[in-house]
Amino acid sequence: MQFDSLDDIRAFCRDLPDGDARAADAATLRQQTLTKPPGSLGRLEHLAIWLARWQRREIPKLERVTVAVFAGNHGIAARGVSAYPQAVTAQMVANFAGGGAAINQIAALAGADLVVVPIELDRPTRDFTIADAMDVDEFLQAVETGYRTVPPQCDLLAVGEMGIGNTTTAAMLCAALLGGDTRRWVGRGTGVDDAGLARKAATIEAALGHHRGILGDPLKVAATLGGRELAAIAGAILAARRHRIPVLLDGFVATAAIVPLTRLDAGITDHCRAGHVSAESGHRALLGELGLEPLLDLEMRLGEASGAGVAILLLRAAVACHAGMATFAEAGVSGGDK
Amino acid sequence: MQFDSLDDIRAFCRDLPDGDARAADAATLRQQTLTKPPGSLGRLEHLAIWLARWQRREIPKLERVTVAVFAGNHGIAARGVSAYPQAVTAQMVANFAGGGAAINQIAALAGADLVVVPIELDRPTRDFTIADAMDVDEFLQAVETGYRTVPPQCDLLAVGEMGIGNTTTAAMLCAALLGGDTRRWVGRGTGVDDAGLARKAATIEAALGHHRGILGDPLKVAATLGGRELAAIAGAILAARRHRIPVLLDGFVATAAIVPLTRLDAGITDHCRAGHVSAESGHRALLGELGLEPLLDLEMRLGEASGAGVAILLLRAAVACHAGMATFAEAGVSGGDK
Repeated sequence: MQFDSLDDIRAFCRDLPDGDARAADAATLRQQTLTKPPGSLGRLEHLAIWLARWQRREIPKLERVTVAVFAGNHGIAARGVSAYPQAVTAQMVANFAGGGAAINQIAALAGADLVVVPIELDRPTRDFTIADAMDVDEFLQAVETGYRTVPPQCDLLAVGEMGIGNTTTAAMLCAALLGGDTRRWVGRGTGVDDAGLARKAATIEAALGHHRGILGDPLKVAATLGGRELAAIAGAILAARRHRIPVLLDGFVATAAIVPLTRLDAGITDHCRAGHVSAESGHRALLGELGLEPLLDLEMRLGEASGAGVAILLLRAAVACHAGMATFAEAGVSGGDK
Repeated sequence: MQFDSLDDIRAFCRDLPDGDARAADAATLRQQTLTKPPGSLGRLEHLAIWLARWQRREIPKLERVTVAVFAGNHGIAARGVSAYPQAVTAQMVANFAGGGAAINQIAALAGADLVVVPIELDRPTRDFTIADAMDVDEFLQAVETGYRTVPPQCDLLAVGEMGIGNTTTAAMLCAALLGGDTRRWVGRGTGVDDAGLARKAATIEAALGHHRGILGDPLKVAATLGGRELAAIAGAILAARRHRIPVLLDGFVATAAIVPLTRLDAGITDHCRAGHVSAESGHRALLGELGLEPLLDLEMRLGEASGAGVAILLLRAAVACHAGMATFAEAGVSGGDK
């Protein structure tokens, strides 16, 4: 066990491992020698340098890429907050195993290993409007599951989730830890109607009242108002940071999963990039709160790491240019006038 | 020769070939059966359906993808409108041949054949502030070169360009055909300073005055104020339309190259998508004028089809999901409540 208590997580976040500034500087210099006007590859240049920093090498690699999808079930699904029945979580896990989901196609295209981790699907979290979703031990076990999923040697991790009802859980964490009007965080998820939206908001308001005593403690919020797959994502983010593995976050739920960690140290996102901004309405606001600039904006709202998976392709483009382009000297191309 | 006169191009644009609505409808229906909430793959769904329409098959393929980069030189380069000397156009063509440029890496990653077509680099167009850049025959020859570059059987075409000075030529076409404040179309290109920006604007203003008599004729504008690589891109767009090949446009210059065609029939863009929006300042306004929504916004401004090349990866993701996902029935997943 990496984290035996909430205090262990707090201690880790007080002293976060850092990237390698020297590798990043070397990558920055390399970019300036390549046959293109300085800066003309835009964010592809920044991404190559960011990968260099966390992989601690001037020329990053993407040989071992892992897409991790965590699945969990939610007591609040019983409150009519999703367009789909809770059984769909396990059915989609079977679909992942059979290769039929979007993320199967995307991970294969992106040259990534897909790891799907269902977490106690037959034991949903408790309805957080009337109880604690998880106790501290259950939460730590889910964090540990996520932590252990990350291969210490991988070059890049993309994280996503599957869980009927979990956009409500994600909105819950945002409302509890970031505040503001609850409706800012509540979206249509898989496709609820206006009545479903109102049920989601009411569910969150009820829980905010019921649990008002713990709202100042980000990790207690993550346990009491969260979900197992969200806790696992937080664990995976911590493991990636420990091993200095760069991370692509998926959509609203995957991003909300790290909000508790950002309340401990905002620098936890330094090794993370937002793969995309989802059409789920709270995601853009959440990325803004966390200072994350999404790589893609394709109006996707599927979850299951699909947006992060597509963004792997952009990192491959960044690395291909960074590693493969000729320098001005090698190619005999005249430099600019500046 | 496909187009012996400007009138031949005008005639083609009066009766543009259309895509296949039945294939598009079948693709739309297919999307609704796949194991995801309806619409949750966002623009990836629209892209798959668009490819189906133009490839005229329910399940589109991306087996034969061509990236075409046209290169030309510009008389107005002598007016100090670029940060680089004109010799760089030929040097970069050599770099493309040697495999050292960004587009070499990107095309290889995207599984595309790269075709580079330098067009009379030793015979720059004439300085359009004092003469006609090309006469009609020179223009038609460049259009023909572009037309012949497109393999009639390819599944997707991405078009881009290389030409020192050609952001000024692109801004010239926009100013002549779309109007408004000239500064709206003038950007820093490869990286000119404020004085360079002012020279670009002055060059365009001078040419607008000198050629005011032909500004009402889009194809005369394309010849008189354009460039060979821009004319070739227009020719490639026409060939793609003839063969119903979907097209990804690259940045500001490649998009400006089709503005004359859009003045003949705005529907010419139906088989085109904007691969990205460039950091070159006029591109966003130009896409807005043409009603094109860019797929990527990565602050790239390199040209040479680099943005369109990266966007091929998104089309591959769209096709992979469209072709490879299981249906709800196949996977035994329960549908939604709507």
